[in-house]
Amino acid sequence: MRKKRFRAQIVGATGYGGLGMTEQLVRHPEVEITALLARNDVGKPISDFFPHLRGFCDRVVEEAHEDRVGQDTDLVIFSTPDRVAMQFAPRLSEAGIALLDYSGDFRFRDAAAYERYAQRQPSVAGKPHDCPELLASSAYGIPELFRDEVRGARLVGNPGCFSVAMELALAPALRAGLIDARSIVVDGKTGISGAGKKPTPTLHFPERAENVTPYRVAAHQHGVEAAEHLGRYAGTKVGLTFVPHLVPISRGIECTCYAQLNGGTTADQVQELYAEAYRGEPFVRVLPRGVSPGPKAVHGSNLCDVSLFVDGENDRLIVVASIDNLIKGQAGMALQNINLMLGLEETLGLDRIPLYP
Amino acid sequence: MRKKRFRAQIVGATGYGGLGMTEQLVRHPEVEITALLARNDVGKPISDFFPHLRGFCDRVVEEAHEDRVGQDTDLVIFSTPDRVAMQFAPRLSEAGIALLDYSGDFRFRDAAAYERYAQRQPSVAGKPHDCPELLASSAYGIPELFRDEVRGARLVGNPGCFSVAMELALAPALRAGLIDARSIVVDGKTGISGAGKKPTPTLHFPERAENVTPYRVAAHQHGVEAAEHLGRYAGTKVGLTFVPHLVPISRGIECTCYAQLNGGTTADQVQELYAEAYRGEPFVRVLPRGVSPGPKAVHGSNLCDVSLFVDGENDRLIVVASIDNLIKGQAGMALQNINLMLGLEETLGLDRIPLYP
Amino acid sequence: MRKKRFRAQIVGATGYGGLGMTEQLVRHPEVEITALLARNDVGKPISDFFPHLRGFCDRVVEEAHEDRVGQDTDLVIFSTPDRVAMQFAPRLSEAGIALLDYSGDFRFRDAAAYERYAQRQPSVAGKPHDCPELLASSAYGIPELFRDEVRGARLVGNPGCFSVAMELALAPALRAGLIDARSIVVDGKTGISGAGKKPTPTLHFPERAENVTPYRVAAHQHGVEAAEHLGRYAGTKVGLTFVPHLVPISRGIECTCYAQLNGGTTADQVQELYAEAYRGEPFVRVLPRGVSPGPKAVHGSNLCDVSLFVDGENDRLIVVASIDNLIKGQAGMALQNINLMLGLEETLGLDRIPLYP
Amino acid sequence: MRKKRFRAQIVGATGYGGLGMTEQLVRHPEVEITALLARNDVGKPISDFFPHLRGFCDRVVEEAHEDRVGQDTDLVIFSTPDRVAMQFAPRLSEAGIALLDYSGDFRFRDAAAYERYAQRQPSVAGKPHDCPELLASSAYGIPELFRDEVRGARLVGNPGCFSVAMELALAPALRAGLIDARSIVVDGKTGISGAGKKPTPTLHFPERAENVTPYRVAAHQHGVEAAEHLGRYAGTKVGLTFVPHLVPISRGIECTCYAQLNGGTTADQVQELYAEAYRGEPFVRVLPRGVSPGPKAVHGSNLCDVSLFVDGENDRLIVVASIDNLIKGQAGMALQNINLMLGLEETLGLDRIPLYP
Repeated sequence: MRKKRFRAQIVGATGYGGLGMTEQLVRHPEVEITALLARNDVGKPISDFFPHLRGFCDRVVEEAHEDRVGQDTDLVIFSTPDRVAMQFAPRLSEAGIALLDYSGDFRFRDAAAYERYAQRQPSVAGKPHDCPELLASSAYGIPELFRDEVRGARLVGNPGCFSVAMELALAPALRAGLIDARSIVVDGKTGISGAGKKPTPTLHFPERAENVTPYRVAAHQHGVEAAEHLGRYAGTKVGLTFVPHLVPISRGIECTCYAQLNGGTTADQVQELYAEAYRGEPFVRVLPRGVSPGPKAVHGSNLCDVSLFVDGENDRLIVVASIDNLIKGQAGMALQNINLMLGLEETLGLDRIPLYP
Repeated sequence: MRKKRFRAQIVGATGYGGLGMTEQLVRHPEVEITALLARNDVGKPISDFFPHLRGFCDRVVEEAHEDRVGQDTDLVIFSTPDRVAMQFAPRLSEAGIALLDYSGDFRFRDAAAYERYAQRQPSVAGKPHDCPELLASSAYGIPELFRDEVRGARLVGNPGCFSVAMELALAPALRAGLIDARSIVVDGKTGISGAGKKPTPTLHFPERAENVTPYRVAAHQHGVEAAEHLGRYAGTKVGLTFVPHLVPISRGIECTCYAQLNGGTTADQVQELYAEAYRGEPFVRVLPRGVSPGPKAVHGSNLCDVSLFVDGENDRLIVVASIDNLIKGQAGMALQNINLMLGLEETLGLDRIPLYP
Repeated sequence: MRKKRFRAQIVGATGYGGLGMTEQLVRHPEVEITALLARNDVGKPISDFFPHLRGFCDRVVEEAHEDRVGQDTDLVIFSTPDRVAMQFAPRLSEAGIALLDYSGDFRFRDAAAYERYAQRQPSVAGKPHDCPELLASSAYGIPELFRDEVRGARLVGNPGCFSVAMELALAPALRAGLIDARSIVVDGKTGISGAGKKPTPTLHFPERAENVTPYRVAAHQHGVEAAEHLGRYAGTKVGLTFVPHLVPISRGIECTCYAQLNGGTTADQVQELYAEAYRGEPFVRVLPRGVSPGPKAVHGSNLCDVSLFVDGENDRLIVVASIDNLIKGQAGMALQNINLMLGLEETLGLDRIPLYP
Repeated sequence: MRKKRFRAQIVGATGYGGLGMTEQLVRHPEVEITALLARNDVGKPISDFFPHLRGFCDRVVEEAHEDRVGQDTDLVIFSTPDRVAMQFAPRLSEAGIALLDYSGDFRFRDAAAYERYAQRQPSVAGKPHDCPELLASSAYGIPELFRDEVRGARLVGNPGCFSVAMELALAPALRAGLIDARSIVVDGKTGISGAGKKPTPTLHFPERAENVTPYRVAAHQHGVEAAEHLGRYAGTKVGLTFVPHLVPISRGIECTCYAQLNGGTTADQVQELYAEAYRGEPFVRVLPRGVSPGPKAVHGSNLCDVSLFVDGENDRLIVVASIDNLIKGQAGMALQNINLMLGLEETLGLDRIPLYP
């Protein structure tokens, strides 16, 4: 096999987020995994934790020693909770090593925005950022909205899974001034893998089967994140109410977004605006009028499907966005960002057709 | 066994709606099933179609001949599509036989409201009502909101399953003038049984597993029905956007309702208002702040759970209502209505504890 | 409300097994819950742990202090792991308090049989019984096979969930000498609730969805238990290979049992034999030839459905038995036993129709 | 894009079987789809039927006219019911066009074997073969067992999905004479997609959720097929009892196979035998002792996982085989065969890592 051009470490390799990245890099033509690092569950092949990987990747998981992180690598991917990547970022930055982080640590370019997020993220509990000086040079990793910022960046904050769906759903309408930016309601539904691999009473199979449960009602950190970046993208202050729900599927997110239309915009006009906004985007499909098949149509892929509806009677726009929370909402988006960071073709290694049924 | 006081026929006995009624009446102390009628699938015991009934009810399903409907009975329950009950209502009414209908035929007391509904219900396609003269004496079967109208009525329109959840969720806030009646968004999630027993490509297991799909976006007839009756109950014109979604559960409905709060109402005030509004109601539980377990907590029961949240930042009220779509959303609500129609205790035969997990 | 005649304590009230008993006793006409005891999660209403119980049972869970267990009660129900009930049994027995135990502690009337079981049950790890002197007076709680032993007993070992299905499936054929007792294969499928309420990596929703996994292959303690009691019932040594599988359902067990037929027994003869064997049994339904709907047809009920097939080409009997693992496989069977222990009608409080769909 | 070397038509393109092939060929470097043919649902892009394909394949489905089948193509893939391919085979064969068929039409090289199968396949109902003269030159498409026969063949019968799992599970043990060939029991579990795309009452979501149902008990045609080919492979007459079950998953098959061991074979010996038998096979993974994760570990891939257990007490071998029924059980196996038919590398286009979770 031809030698790959870039070396990457994955920190947090035994979670679902690390797994998604491993699955992708095993097949990626230019980025090679040189270390799978974790805090627990070390010393055994990754295929012991994820038996589907047997034969594809049997690399032994190593302990994420401080010294090991960043050693002999071009890139470190942090699939870790909030406030882990920020402990390594200054050193890696200095050493010229690229860093992509799955958590909220580098999703905001100014400290004030980070603080608003930090209030909402329970695991951060309002603590201040450890290296605010790096924020200005960081990029927020939704290329469809902020491609210039991501291209060539050395420090990228991968977006929250719900934020991806919400932002791709609402950005064109907001930028065009089509909707009242303070009237937005987002009703999210997520597969259980979105909560990670750690078992908890709430995520126990019998509790989830035959159930639909809202959580962090109007208090989820991805709502803050989306409002922040939608506002930045559209140049307007955005207020939105976001309620996520657990639905009994393994993977997939569907966000149904509602907003008051300004003036008498028609469904055709909305359709045309979105088609134009996403023309040429390899990973966003604006679906034909009336078609909204749900996250199963993007299962296992890096696609985001967007469907548009207008409630003429109540002058309301309804946008439905579907993604695979572990791909477009996490590892796929991360690879798309990494490709841009490394100067590779954006779509490299991301051509998987959705798996159906 | 003691003789029961009332005789009932079920028309449409081999669908899920008829089944729910059969399950309940088999155990009901005062209402006896004297005929199970259907158009197809006749001549065999009902337990051939629903093997769980074996030993509980093995009555043979008879053809729903025009003459047979209403013969030797005190009550006819129509678990049939729209426009079936209205063909029998005049004759049954004249004969003094009580009629409860699951469809939209008798959900509206005036013809204009029926027409608005009929425009939206695809199977009715805007056709006019066959016996508009009966509408004024009909009752809309949500006892929690319209008990006086149901008690002793001879003709009751059982409500749509989503409408039950939406109306119980929003009625107190609307009547108290707490929310802007034109700002309402309802995001509904339903189990697949809500679409009935007839197999279709959309409801095929592999298409539903791992999926969440919106349908009849801002065009579902239950939205019209709810707006109509909420307006009637609250004395104000209601405009709401309703988007139902199919989620991969067998039974259960969850409606997440959003509305703009008037003034600075607090979460405590909302909580108190609802507690007061539903005090003494046997089938509505206003849950403690922060608790919203989803439809699994009412699975198999006639309960409606209501959870209240306030998004203070955006002055928005969020009400989550959970029901079992086949019980509180259909057969249980129907029995609650029947008890009131026949002068029996409202809760008779409806004491089933939810089945968990 | 009329005073109930018997008082019961439930130890281990916050697990699924305790829950099933609570749900049943709340409605039972003669047995009253006087204490819900647990080791953890104490000091709060049971409806805080199981929100569906709100309004039906809000009794506070108390700590299972040694002194509290057996205080002011006629009966103690242990829904606890192996080796808990045996710590209390001698004292309760002396005090004349009835004891029903969900674990393997009292499923065997002689110490040798217990030892064979103890080798297989990982949590017991071969430890000897603490009070072997009580075993001879204990009863094994499958009334359909050992009713005389259960009636009036003061100490009953409730059977393992899989054992119930296997034994009811095979007992008639074995007793009649229809099958080779050493040729038996049982392939079991269970809902996830069978593994209890404690979340583990294996029972995490995303790991279970879209999966079927065998476990403790030919090493599950319920196989030993079934072989023991089938042998005792049929008067022959039984050897069986039992492989349980986790299937992605919340509740329900299906055991498909295979055995070599002796001689040219026909399907009709088998059908007749089973019909005769279970004639009059309130909770066993021998289904008509060719009908085998699965555990959904007994969901939420105390029924066991038995379907019979003959593979004439290979002279093999196939028996499929379906139960609700939490009812007939646990709390329902326990109540059936308790009714017999207390001299009540065996079916009291057990008339719930299966919930479908 | 470089021109591909071979042209293929898919007949029956709008079913799950045709879909699987379309998904694969879209990405295949050497085989190009030149026609998607079907009987119904024609005249619209395939992505109208399968919205996940939008942008990957929007080719219009054409009517499967007699003349169109075989026109300008090197290969015709029949994803059609039994007795369709045999109507076209003589003509295609004469024209030198390769044919791969998903049905049972060409799974047997002699007419007697076909007849035995035809008795069991309900849709064939014992009818004789239309072109028995072609059978001798046909190949049975399980390369792991019959690679020489498939390589370069012009007429291949793709195996039944259950047969793949059963045969790969049992072939090594049978050939080595390790087990009694008349003592085999196979308990199969399949996802619902195995029954195809056509909705039926049995496959309706609410009927399948929370259920496990055996069907065609000891009468499924895949049992006959497996016995036939296992016998041919091992050189011994095989008798097996096969009971398939529907489990509520979308895709995936698990076969748990039981057989009486000859002599005192140990688990280590069995493990070694299988490791040897499948050494170098790209799509069979013999898993380490004690590991049996289920079909989720092969989800979306062309792999077959095989796990081995020995019940020493009862001298019984237990082999668990897991496949994705739509890939290794259908379209993936078909492509593996096609690669061999066309002289391409066997693994071409089949390198997809399983999707997890």
